Amino acid sequence: MSKVAIIMGSKSDLPVMQDAIDILKEFDIETEVDIVSAHRTPEYMMDFGKAAHTRGIDVIIAGAGGAAHLPGMVASITPLPVIGVPVKSSNSIDGWDSILSILQMPGGVPVATVALNGAKNAGILAAQIIGVKDPEVQKQLLVYMEQLKEKVQKMREDL
Amino acid sequence: MSKVAIIMGSKSDLPVMQDAIDILKEFDIETEVDIVSAHRTPEYMMDFGKAAHTRGIDVIIAGAGGAAHLPGMVASITPLPVIGVPVKSSNSIDGWDSILSILQMPGGVPVATVALNGAKNAGILAAQIIGVKDPEVQKQLLVYMEQLKEKVQKMREDL
Amino acid sequence: MSKVAIIMGSKSDLPVMQDAIDILKEFDIETEVDIVSAHRTPEYMMDFGKAAHTRGIDVIIAGAGGAAHLPGMVASITPLPVIGVPVKSSNSIDGWDSILSILQMPGGVPVATVALNGAKNAGILAAQIIGVKDPEVQKQLLVYMEQLKEKVQKMREDL
Amino acid sequence: MSKVAIIMGSKSDLPVMQDAIDILKEFDIETEVDIVSAHRTPEYMMDFGKAAHTRGIDVIIAGAGGAAHLPGMVASITPLPVIGVPVKSSNSIDGWDSILSILQMPGGVPVATVALNGAKNAGILAAQIIGVKDPEVQKQLLVYMEQLKEKVQKMREDL
Amino acid sequence: MSKVAIIMGSKSDLPVMQDAIDILKEFDIETEVDIVSAHRTPEYMMDFGKAAHTRGIDVIIAGAGGAAHLPGMVASITPLPVIGVPVKSSNSIDGWDSILSILQMPGGVPVATVALNGAKNAGILAAQIIGVKDPEVQKQLLVYMEQLKEKVQKMREDL
Amino acid sequence: MSKVAIIMGSKSDLPVMQDAIDILKEFDIETEVDIVSAHRTPEYMMDFGKAAHTRGIDVIIAGAGGAAHLPGMVASITPLPVIGVPVKSSNSIDGWDSILSILQMPGGVPVATVALNGAKNAGILAAQIIGVKDPEVQKQLLVYMEQLKEKVQKMREDL
Amino acid sequence: MSKVAIIMGSKSDLPVMQDAIDILKEFDIETEVDIVSAHRTPEYMMDFGKAAHTRGIDVIIAGAGGAAHLPGMVASITPLPVIGVPVKSSNSIDGWDSILSILQMPGGVPVATVALNGAKNAGILAAQIIGVKDPEVQKQLLVYMEQLKEKVQKMREDL
Amino acid sequence: MSKVAIIMGSKSDLPVMQDAIDILKEFDIETEVDIVSAHRTPEYMMDFGKAAHTRGIDVIIAGAGGAAHLPGMVASITPLPVIGVPVKSSNSIDGWDSILSILQMPGGVPVATVALNGAKNAGILAAQIIGVKDPEVQKQLLVYMEQLKEKVQKMREDL
Repeated sequence: MSKVAIIMGSKSDLPVMQDAIDILKEFDIETEVDIVSAHRTPEYMMDFGKAAHTRGIDVIIAGAGGAAHLPGMVASITPLPVIGVPVKSSNSIDGWDSILSILQMPGGVPVATVALNGAKNAGILAAQIIGVKDPEVQKQLLVYMEQLKEKVQKMREDL
Repeated sequence: MSKVAIIMGSKSDLPVMQDAIDILKEFDIETEVDIVSAHRTPEYMMDFGKAAHTRGIDVIIAGAGGAAHLPGMVASITPLPVIGVPVKSSNSIDGWDSILSILQMPGGVPVATVALNGAKNAGILAAQIIGVKDPEVQKQLLVYMEQLKEKVQKMREDL
Repeated sequence: MSKVAIIMGSKSDLPVMQDAIDILKEFDIETEVDIVSAHRTPEYMMDFGKAAHTRGIDVIIAGAGGAAHLPGMVASITPLPVIGVPVKSSNSIDGWDSILSILQMPGGVPVATVALNGAKNAGILAAQIIGVKDPEVQKQLLVYMEQLKEKVQKMREDL
Repeated sequence: MSKVAIIMGSKSDLPVMQDAIDILKEFDIETEVDIVSAHRTPEYMMDFGKAAHTRGIDVIIAGAGGAAHLPGMVASITPLPVIGVPVKSSNSIDGWDSILSILQMPGGVPVATVALNGAKNAGILAAQIIGVKDPEVQKQLLVYMEQLKEKVQKMREDL
Repeated sequence: MSKVAIIMGSKSDLPVMQDAIDILKEFDIETEVDIVSAHRTPEYMMDFGKAAHTRGIDVIIAGAGGAAHLPGMVASITPLPVIGVPVKSSNSIDGWDSILSILQMPGGVPVATVALNGAKNAGILAAQIIGVKDPEVQKQLLVYMEQLKEKVQKMREDL
Repeated sequence: MSKVAIIMGSKSDLPVMQDAIDILKEFDIETEVDIVSAHRTPEYMMDFGKAAHTRGIDVIIAGAGGAAHLPGMVASITPLPVIGVPVKSSNSIDGWDSILSILQMPGGVPVATVALNGAKNAGILAAQIIGVKDPEVQKQLLVYMEQLKEKVQKMREDL
Repeated sequence: MSKVAIIMGSKSDLPVMQDAIDILKEFDIETEVDIVSAHRTPEYMMDFGKAAHTRGIDVIIAGAGGAAHLPGMVASITPLPVIGVPVKSSNSIDGWDSILSILQMPGGVPVATVALNGAKNAGILAAQIIGVKDPEVQKQLLVYMEQLKEKVQKMREDL
Repeated sequence: MSKVAIIMGSKSDLPVMQDAIDILKEFDIETEVDIVSAHRTPEYMMDFGKAAHTRGIDVIIAGAGGAAHLPGMVASITPLPVIGVPVKSSNSIDGWDSILSILQMPGGVPVATVALNGAKNAGILAAQIIGVKDPEVQKQLLVYMEQLKEKVQKMREDL
């Protein structure tokens, strides 16, 4: 059994992060959703991050906007892969702040960064990571890729 | 047995990408290094990308500079997680082109992007991904995190 | 007889790309419109790109947004001139990602990049390229330039 | 017989623009090199631009840095395709000024923009344009693409 | 008698440029408004620019958006001071293209650039330039500065 | 007695941060210097940050580069003013990442950000903050401002 | 008794700056609000800035947009800490101009810069500065931090 | 008799600003050079700015780097045209801070901004402004334009 934790600093990030929850549901991967704020609940973040790999979680997806410290801080206290989703929040400068403060992590502490507001891709990336140990998920991903093709094929026919 | 493929568009990217090879060696993870150019060997890239998961590869690390298409194109043809390393090559505009053309992938095809020239972190992220299936690697990562702490502790004493 | 292929990664790019189709119609140049996605239909893209010059196509116009790989990938497999239109799609960072991932191609594989959402200019550029072999089209371009002048002249009179 | 004019605003742009001259020589395409400054010799630029298509020139490659007006101004007075090379000159802001003032042309007057300092690609693009009318050049381009592949193949063997 | 020419590439720039006309009217300085397009009416632009100083014009204000060549090209053919107004037109990338292609002129050919959409300041700057020869206008500017103060003073009282 | 803690993520930041230490020495304000890494010693950072105000520290100056999380994380666990110094480290993108990840803090958790590499100003700002409670330090600041004037006065005479 | 002056260049900045007034009221810290324009009332700004520390003011919060000179100019004439709030005004380029012209102060004259439109954080920072001398305010800040936690805790329960 | 004041915040700006002095000497226009710092000598700046137009000065050229407030502040207290030269000083972020804090002045207070480090063009612009009242200087400018042409002509011959 695999599990992906999806965390975000505020409920206001949920409309963006929902895409990760939805796509993981499509892949039948269990998710756990939580509000964890690096700046407002730093101790809870520390507890959450340190314990995650002991609780059966395989991958952590963390979304944050502005000076986005959640993905990087969680990455510093877990041996799990952490996927960072830069969120274009209302107080963001066109998303540049979210992107750079998640992407530009120092050597030793990686965050797997996806596109601005790219929560769907964060979910697929989590599935790909789980697919490394679970051939069933990897097969589903191959099917998913076929479906992408078919959607484009349908667009072409509609043209 | 786990294996990570490390590919790059040109031998000139090797000095940057070597960091990924080196850190994976520290984690005793097998690597396979290859030159695969999206723009100069597109067919070989297609063959490489499609077959990777059938050849025992678990994770692909792809480094590229400028209009960096290698990570995203490989991601479009493999169910494996693809880690993209934006390389600040000589023809890059301060690295912005490399970063944006790797990071901003469309929904459906994620690339796990790390920092500019962040090949070391790409290697650690690959180890974290393998650690999801291999508890031994996850233990090593916990040790590695302790070593980072100790290095800082030593700096503090040296001050 | 000359022909211009106008391709794009998704039907959602059509409102922008329509300008290229329209202006080429004004120049009586045949067009072929298709949905070709670098990331969702990579094999079809390869087939399309490799065969284009054998099917009587003279110029390829490719529009894409975000990490826009379609123009550059098609350029890597065709001897034809490829015109890239950076599209400011909804998941784009003010268009910078589209521009840089189309413009900053490595040495050996050019893409003729036009302005953000500049599909009209892509069409005119295609006409100029065809005009190199077809004096009739070149004459039409000289007429078109006169019409631009006259429109400004009319604006001046309206002032 | 085909001919490409390669113009630049100052002799200081020649080291960058030489790449266009060299690659066109490889394709046995005749070149004409000239110093034409939009800001210092505007009348000469007008004369040059208006007459180019009457003098047997097929394509114009124009390189310029900073507030680079040469490619766009020449494009406004010729029916020929104009390829713009943004030059990262000493007074440029990391090349952004050169890129934007060449790329962002208004509707009606395209400039085929290549990468920053991408004169080599400007030359290849000119060859591709000439290849639209000259099958011999198109064949050479297919050979050139094979050579790019072989160079990467050799790199792979050297690894 | 002093006169300021206010030119722009398209009637669509008029809503922005109107601020320059209005403020100059406040200073009782004669204005002449015209549509002059660098890219669509290059010959007219040349004629306009070369003759301006012979027709009693003291200052030229030129507004343009995108790859904005009008201010710089006019500056290259007139001994008059040229004030450039970067216009944030619909096809502009947040105004960066307009700003950089007006501001970053090469040595020898200055354009006095004002803020994005700053046509009002262009008008005041023109008045300041005329004030250098006309003490009456300079006095008006001192009065204008007092009025600015009073407006802020009034805001303070309203608070 | 007042005290300022100056912390940084790595000894490699010391050459930049030394300016803060030096200027505070000029103001006879006690300093405490420490290596505290958000990403490599997160627990120590938590301990340090939570205890700082109980140990007689008045102001914390925190320097960091890249995805700089140290200033913001410390700010989230202390009631003391935290001054952030964006450091242009070797793995930084021209300093933009450092600036944005320190500056763009969410509502509730401020960081007093100074210029890129502006450790000297961080020290002066700390002195100004201490000056709010200590009139002696405020007097020294007035003297310091006079000295700045005199230095410029001397430059003027040297001219 | 402590007092914070909140100044801004125009009444149009008040909707943004109100957040600073409101949060300081929550901390029972006296505020003084004024319109002070660096560019329209420079003499008043000089008088205001020089006298502030003699009138019982402890901290100055200055908000400004565009080429924002108010925070830096006031900082040059007062020994008090000056907090700068970059305001994203209508004539601002996505806020970059406001941020850079407040943040990038030269050595000797710091401005404590907060996030774009971050007036709330400016208010909290002012409270933190006053807390250095007033233990009562510092206690309130610890309570405020607890409240932030509880709000997130409540969000978590609502999820 | 005409006179141009050339001021800068620090002697370290002189190597850049010397170009303005030199070109004005070529035009036989009297210059006055001074160190005036907005942030270190604000009162002197106020005195200088307010008196300039009463002392026979026609134009003020002000160079500054980083958060460059000198040009805008002087513009706020003089009826004279102020030309701003953004200087790429060592503490500047690629010049963007200098450019934006000079260019983006609010309505009512213009600064005539030239290119980054464009002191030569500032000098020529000052000459153009003086040429509005002095036909002799305007004639010299026409000669200067001819010389620019001849230099390019000579380059062409050297090619």
